[in-house]
Amino acid sequence: MSSSKSNNAAASEKCLSLDNINPQFIELEYAVRGPLVIRAGQIEKELQQGVKKPFDQVIRANIGDCHAMGQKPITFLRQLLALTMDTTLFDSPDYPEDVKKRARIILDGCQGQSVGSYTDSAGIEVIRRQVADFIAKRDGAPCNYEDIYLTGGASPGIKSILSLVRAKVNGKRPGVMVPIPQYPLYSATISEYAMNRVGYYLNEDKNWSLEIPELERAFNESRKTTEPRALVVINPGNPTGQVLTRENIVDVIKFAHKHKLLLLADEVYQANIYAPNSKFYSFKSVAYEMGSPYREMELCSFMSTSKGYLGECGIRGGYMEVINMCPQVKAMLTKSITASLCSTTAGQVAVSALVYPPEKGEPSYEQYIAEKAAVLDALKERAELVYKTFNSFEGFKVNVVQGAMYAFPQIIIPPKAIAAAKAKNMAPDTFYAFELLESTGICIVSGSGFGQREGTYHFRTTILPQTDQLKIMLDKFQTFHAEFMKKYK
Amino acid sequence: MSSSKSNNAAASEKCLSLDNINPQFIELEYAVRGPLVIRAGQIEKELQQGVKKPFDQVIRANIGDCHAMGQKPITFLRQLLALTMDTTLFDSPDYPEDVKKRARIILDGCQGQSVGSYTDSAGIEVIRRQVADFIAKRDGAPCNYEDIYLTGGASPGIKSILSLVRAKVNGKRPGVMVPIPQYPLYSATISEYAMNRVGYYLNEDKNWSLEIPELERAFNESRKTTEPRALVVINPGNPTGQVLTRENIVDVIKFAHKHKLLLLADEVYQANIYAPNSKFYSFKSVAYEMGSPYREMELCSFMSTSKGYLGECGIRGGYMEVINMCPQVKAMLTKSITASLCSTTAGQVAVSALVYPPEKGEPSYEQYIAEKAAVLDALKERAELVYKTFNSFEGFKVNVVQGAMYAFPQIIIPPKAIAAAKAKNMAPDTFYAFELLESTGICIVSGSGFGQREGTYHFRTTILPQTDQLKIMLDKFQTFHAEFMKKYK
Ligand SMILES: Cc1ncc(COP(=O)(O)O)c(C=O)c1O
Ligand SMILES: Cc1ncc(COP(=O)(O)O)c(C=O)c1O
Repeated sequence: MSSSKSNNAAASEKCLSLDNINPQFIELEYAVRGPLVIRAGQIEKELQQGVKKPFDQVIRANIGDCHAMGQKPITFLRQLLALTMDTTLFDSPDYPEDVKKRARIILDGCQGQSVGSYTDSAGIEVIRRQVADFIAKRDGAPCNYEDIYLTGGASPGIKSILSLVRAKVNGKRPGVMVPIPQYPLYSATISEYAMNRVGYYLNEDKNWSLEIPELERAFNESRKTTEPRALVVINPGNPTGQVLTRENIVDVIKFAHKHKLLLLADEVYQANIYAPNSKFYSFKSVAYEMGSPYREMELCSFMSTSKGYLGECGIRGGYMEVINMCPQVKAMLTKSITASLCSTTAGQVAVSALVYPPEKGEPSYEQYIAEKAAVLDALKERAELVYKTFNSFEGFKVNVVQGAMYAFPQIIIPPKAIAAAKAKNMAPDTFYAFELLESTGICIVSGSGFGQREGTYHFRTTILPQTDQLKIMLDKFQTFHAEFMKKYK
Repeated sequence: MSSSKSNNAAASEKCLSLDNINPQFIELEYAVRGPLVIRAGQIEKELQQGVKKPFDQVIRANIGDCHAMGQKPITFLRQLLALTMDTTLFDSPDYPEDVKKRARIILDGCQGQSVGSYTDSAGIEVIRRQVADFIAKRDGAPCNYEDIYLTGGASPGIKSILSLVRAKVNGKRPGVMVPIPQYPLYSATISEYAMNRVGYYLNEDKNWSLEIPELERAFNESRKTTEPRALVVINPGNPTGQVLTRENIVDVIKFAHKHKLLLLADEVYQANIYAPNSKFYSFKSVAYEMGSPYREMELCSFMSTSKGYLGECGIRGGYMEVINMCPQVKAMLTKSITASLCSTTAGQVAVSALVYPPEKGEPSYEQYIAEKAAVLDALKERAELVYKTFNSFEGFKVNVVQGAMYAFPQIIIPPKAIAAAKAKNMAPDTFYAFELLESTGICIVSGSGFGQREGTYHFRTTILPQTDQLKIMLDKFQTFHAEFMKKYK
């Protein structure tokens, strides 16, 4: 008792304690880096220290981190980065002329011709123009570079738009509609900003399709306590791997228009489409083709260099396109970004590499195309492999991985395992994931981190381990699962 | 009237309008990139389009953006960046072995040995350890790498700590004590987070010294409406250029301890000391030497690659050291950062270059030392030049630039000019700054952007234009000022 007293005394010496800090920090959760991942890190250290385990390495299938899993960077992008960093390389014969040309254009767009200068808050103008050209070409619709903001990965762009809608309306907390399951950046940010999350379920039985009656249900039920302001759609989906059809996007746009919801289209996986019948449609292009009044709707879409075939997560490159926003509101958005000065120039250069790659006839073209295809082909192969393998597991229900970088299988967890989980004060799927980690070294994220229908259990795995690694992983997984089922059935 | 009606109709079609977005976005101001700077950008475009002006270029003395003003990057840092980006350069004989060694250490610390992987949210461990070694050596006091967070410039670190203390206490809004004048990131963030700014005046008559009675006054007066939680000290000062004495720091630490304020020490200019009698003391080292209970106080300090002799603003590198924080609170801080994944690896590499430079005997050492000295010597020369020149202007009151990168002179603005400003609905110092910009192309920031005593007028200029440029600038400034005084006296 005296020790607890002196503990309290020590704690009361501190300026900050759990009961007087920002309560939203306590509320927020980000499962992709939660307790399972922390434990995986500990296990890695234990292995290094020579602790004996039934495996010799941790396989990090928890996070969409391409290079960490052995994906090779695209040479063109890395050369462009190196040239803008060390300009003596302009004299090197090892760097192709088309890359030099592009590096020169970027440096000419920097104050003092150095990537060491702060850029405009929205990014280097010439790169914003390159993005606008890329989007215009992709969509067959006009794109104004002034609608483009370069961001350090997609995350800060998403956060600044969510922060913009963070205002009580009619005394009610603002609500943000997000899919269930969702990418946890959304739930974490909504918590951090003290907004209300309005979840709408994706239909697992129809390959995670997004259905309008469910959107209406979620919207209407939330109205008592919340003023819904924004609708988040992730397409292709994380963690679900679904790709929306064009008809579906039309319906979603009509829904958002009807209810005056700001549409946030998270399209970071737009280059990751694997299913033969799936195709990526941008919300921008569909709204444009629908004509008035949809063409004039406010729409924010997000893109990243972390995904696709670049997989440059650590560099932190991304952009958002913000269209049809009231100019005064847009000025406020811009102002809010200026205080943080600018996003990293390395990320901005990576965005340039994404949207303005080598063109046919240029010296880097063939290698660029070959490297890009190699990455995308391997992802496609692995998307199919993961689907097929999990589909053969007892008690697994798994949808085709149409796009993105994940599978999100449902597991029927036997009652005895549910009881064992309860005894450990764990959600059943978290229990499953911990058992898997401790006995195989495979790190996945349990479904509760993304959201799932009550009483169902899932996990998310990436499809990123290199194919030979992935095969080993799936073998181990299969053995583990069979034993788990035997033990708890 | 019908047009205003249809305007309203159009506006009401929008999801977002000024009256339903985050009100804090409307409140916040960031003068370093405010209307003067926007006008400077327009003038640059006008000059490009051939519009005739009494000058042929804009001199951007508004922002501490070193490379933009012609400062050269440090070769060692850029080589380190290029090597980590394009690993084929390891085969190049043009890259010295000590740089290769350092690049190898960093890559070995990255998942998949690629800077394209996400890092731990707090940054690459090996670089955090390098930072800890650097601080320990600087301070002669222990430093634990687990207290180090790598951040994208100092700004995001500052914002996350301010966000942490953002909790109402006893029903009162949290208050943050900041100097007047201050660096506007603080006022902007305090607005954005709906906290209260508690300003304490620096004493202009004593070279912007920080005085305890004034801290007490500000603290006590704020208590009616506010719960002060944190105290920000900028040392060396921006915009003031003052360097605190050790005695002064001792007193500030005692004050913070007495009132249980979280100390935020913004020490990004620690390498920028020019006055012969000035020396940089870190808050950490002073608190450590003071012994208990000060040694156990919570303290956050911030550092950046944007300032000092690197001047790498665009790369976005920085770190914060957070000591003595309650472990549970620190866990919440870490958690809040994880959702944004990580800071850019390019910035992390730049931090490594800052804290682990070439050592005596290594191949890059001589060049590194020479380049570093060249930058610092030039800054010192310009600090003196700016002080001496402004000191000779009629109606100017200017303090010695002891450190950092700015001068913040007071101008006695004649009543006629004040009237002219009023007629234009402008603050008198903003009026002065606009007149200067339009007639000379020199872009400075008026004192109101930083805060100043009522009835006094200031502006901030950087000392960053290269010395020949700076001389031209000061000449033009002198002519302008003489004419301004003639016109309005
Ligand atoms: C759907 C989705 N949106 C956004 C992001 C953010 O990634 P980044 O900030 O690296 O661009 C991710 C990352 O996994 C994601 O899956
Ligand atoms: C006092 C002070 N703190 C922090 C910063 C933030 O700079 P950065 O985010 O580039 O590190 C600045 C930039 O000018 C500054 O002057």
